[in-house]
Amino acid sequence: MDNARLNEEKRIAGYHAAGMVEEGGIVGLGTGSTVLFAMERLGARIAEGLSVAGIPTSYQAALRAREYGIPLASLDEHPKIDIAIDGADQVDPRFNLIKGRGAAHLREKIVADAADQLVIVVDRTKMADRLDAPVPIEVLPFACSPVLRRLTGMGGRPVLREAVKKDGPVITDNGNLVIDCSFGAIGDAAALEAAISAIPGVVGCGLFTAFGKKMKVVIGDGRECRVLSL
Amino acid sequence: MDNARLNEEKRIAGYHAAGMVEEGGIVGLGTGSTVLFAMERLGARIAEGLSVAGIPTSYQAALRAREYGIPLASLDEHPKIDIAIDGADQVDPRFNLIKGRGAAHLREKIVADAADQLVIVVDRTKMADRLDAPVPIEVLPFACSPVLRRLTGMGGRPVLREAVKKDGPVITDNGNLVIDCSFGAIGDAAALEAAISAIPGVVGCGLFTAFGKKMKVVIGDGRECRVLSL
Repeated sequence: MDNARLNEEKRIAGYHAAGMVEEGGIVGLGTGSTVLFAMERLGARIAEGLSVAGIPTSYQAALRAREYGIPLASLDEHPKIDIAIDGADQVDPRFNLIKGRGAAHLREKIVADAADQLVIVVDRTKMADRLDAPVPIEVLPFACSPVLRRLTGMGGRPVLREAVKKDGPVITDNGNLVIDCSFGAIGDAAALEAAISAIPGVVGCGLFTAFGKKMKVVIGDGRECRVLSL
Repeated sequence: MDNARLNEEKRIAGYHAAGMVEEGGIVGLGTGSTVLFAMERLGARIAEGLSVAGIPTSYQAALRAREYGIPLASLDEHPKIDIAIDGADQVDPRFNLIKGRGAAHLREKIVADAADQLVIVVDRTKMADRLDAPVPIEVLPFACSPVLRRLTGMGGRPVLREAVKKDGPVITDNGNLVIDCSFGAIGDAAALEAAISAIPGVVGCGLFTAFGKKMKVVIGDGRECRVLSL
């Protein structure tokens, strides 16, 4: 699929998700290219009179929300939020996700967990029969070497994520490192998420397996979009 | 028990643990008052010719190790270590622990996990039939309010730890917050540890339930000490 068309599908999905936000809503603002379209459209709705507050999941989300005129709030003001809009790197038929290509998956998971409804916006290329992308894992710098060891012991192939425009590794918005760990095709995603999360020093893992019931997946598809739920 | 006698039991236990370190060993250095006695004795052994390297679990451990002349190294050099010496706030008969009164439990757990052998040094007051102390939980500042909500939903009574000699909450060596959460008498400690660790935004939990098999508990008891294993 060419880039212009992919971009158009992202736009359609993002705009549709923004239309699902209701007056007075507290909205989790995910990170990534498709979510930016949702934020653009949400900003336009706010200019037309909609009243909402956004909870950003990253510096990117906060910066762009301000550009689009979306008022921001924090989880301290709203520990429970109405709807979170976010992207995903891979979505399987049971609505398990791999997230974290943008290294924002820890705050994204916190916001998804706090949300009544989770809307995942993707283009068609993100749908997969089985999750097989490397799993991004945020890790305390102190624990990086032992965690690499543990992941290898679990049959993974872990690689520390290197930065671009910065020497050395990527540093997350939380001051931690990111390990991308390939496990091949993932069988039991929930068990793998639990096993990774239990390693001491792992701060957050890009497998999202607990949110299927409250999730809608909005897929840009040609000139339309499909909305799936389990 | 009066303070001087308690202190003497801590000293006896700490000194005994330092005697368990072998030539060439890589030694995890825990945090807290009893461990300081172990480090004091380890420093004396080094002055007598013992060659070891210490992996500190906190700023406190690093600063005091330097005072005692213990050479320091990191987990990046030694992702696998021989013996970790640490304290505990409560120890039950199955060697489940509650740790974290000093807010160092995250790094302590990482070091314990990396160690072949874990030596827990305590005075008699730390032994309990059942764990019932509040569980210290290190949490990303971004997630504090939703985590408080989740813990309450689990039947806990969570309290954000307030600092002394600093306004506002305690900040850990990792830049995070600490919630102390009472659950009354804890039945299944391993299940509780897993449930707390799985909450998005929890960075580390002060329940230690996975290390019983490789653990020795050294208890100062009058003028002697007892060494227990499962």
